[in-house]
Amino acid sequence: MTAPTGHGAETEWNYCAVFQAAVELVGRRWTGAIVRLLLGGPMRFSELLAKVPGLSDRLLSERLRELEHEGVVVRTVHPEVPIRVEYALTEKGRELESIVRALDDWAGRWSG
Amino acid sequence: MTAPTGHGAETEWNYCAVFQAAVELVGRRWTGAIVRLLLGGPMRFSELLAKVPGLSDRLLSERLRELEHEGVVVRTVHPEVPIRVEYALTEKGRELESIVRALDDWAGRWSG
Repeated sequence: MTAPTGHGAETEWNYCAVFQAAVELVGRRWTGAIVRLLLGGPMRFSELLAKVPGLSDRLLSERLRELEHEGVVVRTVHPEVPIRVEYALTEKGRELESIVRALDDWAGRWSG
Repeated sequence: MTAPTGHGAETEWNYCAVFQAAVELVGRRWTGAIVRLLLGGPMRFSELLAKVPGLSDRLLSERLRELEHEGVVVRTVHPEVPIRVEYALTEKGRELESIVRALDDWAGRWSG
């Protein structure tokens, strides 16, 4: 028997490994902040670093690598002098916008 | 100057502490799975434990306490013999349904 998931017509709220992986990816420390910033357009490493309070070089690299690996972010090297490296959301990444908006709304409604 | 957030009419995708807290709450290890299960209705501790593969007693207690503290889950003690303790989503918790559904859809579209 395969585990029922929420992907069918009738929702069964059972454990779903695919959902679990997605929610833990998005919720990993800083990942949400990075995806949220990139919804505004491509950014350089240093811009991302400057815009997320408390985020270190090392953790930003690590998160960007994970997001690249998951196909959420793409890294583009522009062959200029000096070389410019930009990070942008893929289609998969841009489709997170509705989730980020829904979480924004939820958080806004319930904060304070 | 206060930090712009995504809560206004025009979205600015800047860092937002309120969003960050929400995404990290939902994405914390096992939290997503617990909220997802409770969308189906109240459950006992032992039911939750049985339905999430790999989740330990200790971590389930910890996550439920965090979710209670955040006002997402409410714990009810039914004075029966033996005592029955149930966990249920609050209104704040039930409003996570749209986010869970959106993440389900996203994960389903992009998995495999």
